[in-house]
Amino acid sequence: MEKQKIAILGGTGALGTGLALRWIKADYPVIIGSRESQKAVAAADHLQEKWGVKVTQATDNVSAAEAGDIVVLTVPFAHQRSTLKSVQTQLKGKILIDVTVALAPPKVARVQLPPEGSAGIIAQNLLGEAVNVVSAFQNVPADALQSEQSSIDCDVLVTGNNVEAREIVIQLAAKAGMRAFHAGPIDNSVATEALTSLLISINKRYKAHSGIRITGIHT
Amino acid sequence: MEKQKIAILGGTGALGTGLALRWIKADYPVIIGSRESQKAVAAADHLQEKWGVKVTQATDNVSAAEAGDIVVLTVPFAHQRSTLKSVQTQLKGKILIDVTVALAPPKVARVQLPPEGSAGIIAQNLLGEAVNVVSAFQNVPADALQSEQSSIDCDVLVTGNNVEAREIVIQLAAKAGMRAFHAGPIDNSVATEALTSLLISINKRYKAHSGIRITGIHT
Repeated sequence: MEKQKIAILGGTGALGTGLALRWIKADYPVIIGSRESQKAVAAADHLQEKWGVKVTQATDNVSAAEAGDIVVLTVPFAHQRSTLKSVQTQLKGKILIDVTVALAPPKVARVQLPPEGSAGIIAQNLLGEAVNVVSAFQNVPADALQSEQSSIDCDVLVTGNNVEAREIVIQLAAKAGMRAFHAGPIDNSVATEALTSLLISINKRYKAHSGIRITGIHT
Repeated sequence: MEKQKIAILGGTGALGTGLALRWIKADYPVIIGSRESQKAVAAADHLQEKWGVKVTQATDNVSAAEAGDIVVLTVPFAHQRSTLKSVQTQLKGKILIDVTVALAPPKVARVQLPPEGSAGIIAQNLLGEAVNVVSAFQNVPADALQSEQSSIDCDVLVTGNNVEAREIVIQLAAKAGMRAFHAGPIDNSVATEALTSLLISINKRYKAHSGIRITGIHT
């Protein structure tokens, strides 16, 4: 079976390129999208130069969403809605892995969630039943992804209303070197997104790059 | 210096008696309070019979709050406000360690936070500046406290607006066998309380007694 194509929208930041790197290494075809396609090309060039890996395509967000079987969103919260609206048609019938965290700059170390509850909930409400929104990777230190170490000392909490879609994301996380768990419906993305601010607060105080591990599970 | 007296309100459940057990073992004077003092006496008797430890006093919540230097609240969310109102005078100038989690039964595995954000925020708003509210111990599996094992495989995320008060709670957690971290202002208790529902969801799916560890900190 051919591997599913992964499109990473807003895939030019540390988290997006880090995920791209790891999935390419795991032999997935990866498409990087950006609002401006030349930024996507620059991110692809960076990955090629620094890590010797080749993205399948670097293009604008709409073309990337169209080409991807699974679509990943890694944009700042302020751009989440506009990006999703621009690719709503292209996402129909697909899984959207939403990595967005509802942060309210400048006080990103303080939990300040939106009235809807979380970015994950906003995405699912906006896209409706036609798209399986899965929220994941909120708590992974971005710099850990771009490293020689194959496994990452942080678990991924995967939330979403569709169990099969969550399972696919859990497998993709494993391919990227992360242990991941089913963590309930999309409403539970409130926890993972709030946790991001709490971890930023820990990072500031302890000069750390913190992450989390789930204990007490025998897998 | 004499050790501070710890009063545990609603201290008859698994979490309250577990904390009592561990602090008594660490030579702290512990007072157990309950709405009905005979329930507190029963919990004290249980601790004596099962673990051979002796609580300093078992009484009603108001007397316990009066007698304690540090007061711990471990009641169901539905009783949080009424309990706090009943001891508001007794708490003045003290630290309140609020262990309450804003759960909305019966769907406790789904994050459903109150309009205020969290039980911790509700407590701080209700009690005002006269009381240093510190939120902690939300993610600790209660059964782990009542065990022979001295150290617990779960970290404690400590939130509150007063750094010194947080530090005292971090030390108390250490005495009870838990590693604890400063995790920001009381607003960040949204994260720890939401995380409780997410861990319950994990427990159901994986038949686990899950907890969390913070990674990436060199302490």
